[in-house]
Amino acid sequence: MSTEDKNIHWNVPEPTLRRLPWYLAYVKLLKSSDEEMVSSTRIAKKIGVDPSQVAKDLSFVNITGKTRVGYEIDELIRVLGKFLGFTDIHRAVLFGVGSLGAALLQDSGLSQYGLQIVAAFDISPKRIGTKINNIPIYHTRDLPLKIKELGVNICVLTVPIHKAQEVTDWVIGCGIKAIWNFTPYRIKVPHNIIVQNTSLYSHLAVMFNRINSIK
Amino acid sequence: MSTEDKNIHWNVPEPTLRRLPWYLAYVKLLKSSDEEMVSSTRIAKKIGVDPSQVAKDLSFVNITGKTRVGYEIDELIRVLGKFLGFTDIHRAVLFGVGSLGAALLQDSGLSQYGLQIVAAFDISPKRIGTKINNIPIYHTRDLPLKIKELGVNICVLTVPIHKAQEVTDWVIGCGIKAIWNFTPYRIKVPHNIIVQNTSLYSHLAVMFNRINSIK
Repeated sequence: MSTEDKNIHWNVPEPTLRRLPWYLAYVKLLKSSDEEMVSSTRIAKKIGVDPSQVAKDLSFVNITGKTRVGYEIDELIRVLGKFLGFTDIHRAVLFGVGSLGAALLQDSGLSQYGLQIVAAFDISPKRIGTKINNIPIYHTRDLPLKIKELGVNICVLTVPIHKAQEVTDWVIGCGIKAIWNFTPYRIKVPHNIIVQNTSLYSHLAVMFNRINSIK
Repeated sequence: MSTEDKNIHWNVPEPTLRRLPWYLAYVKLLKSSDEEMVSSTRIAKKIGVDPSQVAKDLSFVNITGKTRVGYEIDELIRVLGKFLGFTDIHRAVLFGVGSLGAALLQDSGLSQYGLQIVAAFDISPKRIGTKINNIPIYHTRDLPLKIKELGVNICVLTVPIHKAQEVTDWVIGCGIKAIWNFTPYRIKVPHNIIVQNTSLYSHLAVMFNRINSIK
C-alpha cells in the first residue's frame, strides 16, 4: 500500500493533504501579525488555489467558518495541526547514517511537525555507538532488540540505493509499518505497509530541466 | 513560471522527469551487479510502471535500444545522468541556516547529483562568519556583493515561513533565477523565475494520515 498508489481509496485525497500544510503555514503567518479571522477566499488568493478548492479541502477538517468573516485563526491552526498529525508525536527510526541520513538527524525541525527520530541504525563501526543531535546510532542487526523499547513503527530510509530493498525487507520483518523513503529506489512492500517517497534528486532533475529550458 | 504551473508547456513533462531518476537508480544498481544490458520491460517490471510508459519516458532521452536486448547499461547511466543534469555542476546559495538549512549544508550527497551549495546566508551574528561542511556563511545583505563572484543562479530557501516571501523578493532582485523552496509557504515569483517546491512537512502529513487510516 503506497501513498502514491492511485488504486486505493483513502478518505482524504493526497492533493488535499499536500495543500493543507500550505494553508496552515499561511494562517500561522497571519497569526504572527496578530490577525484573528481569515476567509477561504483570502487563503485561496494568497496560495494561488481556487476558492472552491480551499473550501473543499477544509471540508475534510472538522472546522466551521462563519458567513462573511471566515475562520478563527487560532482555531484553524489548532484543528489543522491536529488533523495533519503535526501535533502528535510519531516516533521513528532512521536507517543509513550517510550524508543525507546524518543531515536529517540534525534537523530538529521535523519534531515540530510530529516526527521524532529516536534512534538511528547503520553498519559502519565508525558510527555505531556514537550520537548525532543526541540520537544514538546502533548496529542495523540490533533493531529487533530495540524496536519494542523504542515504540516505533516508522522508518526513515536513507541507505545507499543497493541496500534499499534489503533494508526495507529487514525493517518490515522487524515490525515497521511505514517507510519514509528518501532513496531514489522504488522499494517493494507488502500491501499493508505505507510508503512515502521523497526523492530530493527527482526534484533537482525537474528544476535543472526547467532552468535549461529558459536559458 | 513555477515548475508546478500546469499552464506552461515544457518540452519534458514533470512526471517523466520524476520517473527518470528511478530508472537511473535501478540501472546503477544493475551495473553494480556487473550486468551489461537492460530492457525497458525489465525496468518497467522492477519500478512498477507500464512498459509503454518507460519506453515513452526514455524517448525524451537521446538513446536507442536494440531489439530484444534493450539498452546498454553504461550508456544509459551516462545519457540519463547528463539529461537529468546530475553530471553538470549547478552552483547554488542557501538562505536560512536554521535546522533544515544547516542539515542540507551537511548533505554532500546533493553535489553528486549536480547541486553544489557554495555559500550560505543568514542574519544571525552567531552564524555569520562561520562555516558548515566548509561552506561559508555570510550576512543576507552581502548577496549583491557575492553573487557575481560566486557565479550562482539557484537559491535553496530554508528560511522561517514569515521570511519566505521577503527573502524570495530579495534574492530575485539580486539576480537569482531559480528557487528550491523547502518552506511550506507558497512564494510568489515573476513569470520568468523557476520555483521547485519540496515540502517535507506535506509528505509527513500524507504519511501520518495513511498510518492513521490503517490503524
